[in-house]
Amino acid sequence: MIIDCHGHYTTAPPALEDWRRRQVAAIKDRAQMPRAAELQISDDELRESIESNQLSLMRQRGSDLTIFSPRASFMAHHIGDFEISSTWAAICNELCFRVSQLFPQHFVPAAMLPQSPGVDPATCIPELVRCVEEFGNVAINLNPDPSGGHWTSPPLSDRAWYPIYEKMVEYEIPAMIHVSTSCNACFHTTGAHYLNADTTAFMQCLTSDLFKDFPTLKFVIPHGGGAVPYHWGRFRGLAQELKKPLLKDHLLHNVYFDTCVYHQPGIDLLAKVIPVENILFASEMIGAVRGIDPETGQYFDDTKRYIEANTQLSAEDRYKIYEGNARRVYPRLDRLLNEQGRS
Amino acid sequence: MIIDCHGHYTTAPPALEDWRRRQVAAIKDRAQMPRAAELQISDDELRESIESNQLSLMRQRGSDLTIFSPRASFMAHHIGDFEISSTWAAICNELCFRVSQLFPQHFVPAAMLPQSPGVDPATCIPELVRCVEEFGNVAINLNPDPSGGHWTSPPLSDRAWYPIYEKMVEYEIPAMIHVSTSCNACFHTTGAHYLNADTTAFMQCLTSDLFKDFPTLKFVIPHGGGAVPYHWGRFRGLAQELKKPLLKDHLLHNVYFDTCVYHQPGIDLLAKVIPVENILFASEMIGAVRGIDPETGQYFDDTKRYIEANTQLSAEDRYKIYEGNARRVYPRLDRLLNEQGRS
Repeated sequence: MIIDCHGHYTTAPPALEDWRRRQVAAIKDRAQMPRAAELQISDDELRESIESNQLSLMRQRGSDLTIFSPRASFMAHHIGDFEISSTWAAICNELCFRVSQLFPQHFVPAAMLPQSPGVDPATCIPELVRCVEEFGNVAINLNPDPSGGHWTSPPLSDRAWYPIYEKMVEYEIPAMIHVSTSCNACFHTTGAHYLNADTTAFMQCLTSDLFKDFPTLKFVIPHGGGAVPYHWGRFRGLAQELKKPLLKDHLLHNVYFDTCVYHQPGIDLLAKVIPVENILFASEMIGAVRGIDPETGQYFDDTKRYIEANTQLSAEDRYKIYEGNARRVYPRLDRLLNEQGRS
Repeated sequence: MIIDCHGHYTTAPPALEDWRRRQVAAIKDRAQMPRAAELQISDDELRESIESNQLSLMRQRGSDLTIFSPRASFMAHHIGDFEISSTWAAICNELCFRVSQLFPQHFVPAAMLPQSPGVDPATCIPELVRCVEEFGNVAINLNPDPSGGHWTSPPLSDRAWYPIYEKMVEYEIPAMIHVSTSCNACFHTTGAHYLNADTTAFMQCLTSDLFKDFPTLKFVIPHGGGAVPYHWGRFRGLAQELKKPLLKDHLLHNVYFDTCVYHQPGIDLLAKVIPVENILFASEMIGAVRGIDPETGQYFDDTKRYIEANTQLSAEDRYKIYEGNARRVYPRLDRLLNEQGRS
């Protein structure tokens, strides 16, 4: 079984974007604020948006199930205030839940949070609870920079984030550390801000003792861990300078890397440097890089091909990357799959 | 001959730091401002600080010459105003010049600029001119984020930077794109901010047509290019989405990566993914990672070992990485070496 731990609903029907546009416009004129109930998307529309896109590609490429969250770049936590984010998160999470109900064999939801710059992260807990308790979400996406490229929040090791971590531990849900659109002209969203955030989050964990306080907390660092595996020697050396334990003891009980690295040499490096137990299959399909690589004739983001073509991984290693690790890192997913008879 | 294109004067005599501390303290009380002439460091002190540190390690490791610039983390362009930065840059550049005069076979200077957040980059030109004309500098370090982690300057493709580029082209000097200390608590300086800046700068070049305006402008992206080589497929795919030419045509006549990657798999990936013509030997020694790797028993930053141990590079490739490319990217260095009879 092949579990893709990193998919976003990038292909939602256009009504969603229209509603969001009205919501954003109404920030300046609250009387024009659309009600959530004004967004009407039928099951057929949802089905069509998935079947002709993600599900079609999953079938072509041979993956079985996607942990599916709202479109990352559309979270845009920097827009408006907590109320704006709250309504928007509720709508987006409900759509992912409905997709999971329509395709229970193929999509399991992960929640975005109604974060807002300068607002206490604890305000996100009611939405988190709803997504887990009512919608069966198995994970959350946590944005370490709700300002969208200005980095005005404290590091992930700060106690301000602890209420979210307490709930994550209680529910046994991991967080993918995933930023949203950059509104800083210095940072291209998917080419710089995403990768920078991955590297930044890892280093925030490295310099802190966060996982002493939360020994069972789990973070998934997407996009292959940003710059981290490529600079693994640098990070091992910095940990040593900082008198931290070896990275495998200090971080690798809690930190996982996905395989959203879009060429063979990158995946080969990831598989060589990071213990296979810490690698989770993912493609972020349909996402930032949708084209076909002229060097291979295949989609850049068809990451399964790189894992298949890697010459160092054993069958057992591939099982861990594709399924075993995900069932361990996402216990709620594992229980759901067992209930579905997929054990 | 082995040219290390990335060394900083991290071991300057403590009098330098003392003077800087007085200067920073005097920002609040200008009457206490120290004069530049109050900093007294003898040639013997300079000699000692180099012979027992960088030069000793260069001899041990077998490198011949270092392109030597002021300590990157001490540039701290975010401190004070243009005048503060200007005095500080002048002092630091003069010390690197003096080192190059004391050890003309081993050190060639590269300049820091007196950048200051919100101040027109053109104000840096007099110091740049002095460093090239009077001090024989062969390159500059250009900080894309003088705010120190708040990223308040425009992208490197913005016309605000063009006066510097015009001077670089006129003088045939490349710029290493190198940030300084992060004063944003989110970013660890050497573990996140440096690598993020490398990735960010590359993406700023990718999304722009900067090198159409300056076909002979040359940027060196340090620290192995941040996340770029590891995500080379992602960047190729993003360029394609953005309707840009192939990266080799769009950027690789102008952008070079150094070898400051502190483990074998990282260097192997760099050498596999990036054309050998675009790789410049460097160690950033003595820098961020000073320890010995317990996995190898060797210094993390002894990057020559990784290049020697790489099994794909030919002798001709190694010549390019060690010397040939540097003589091409730094024409003033090449002329200096020819004058010294090292052709």
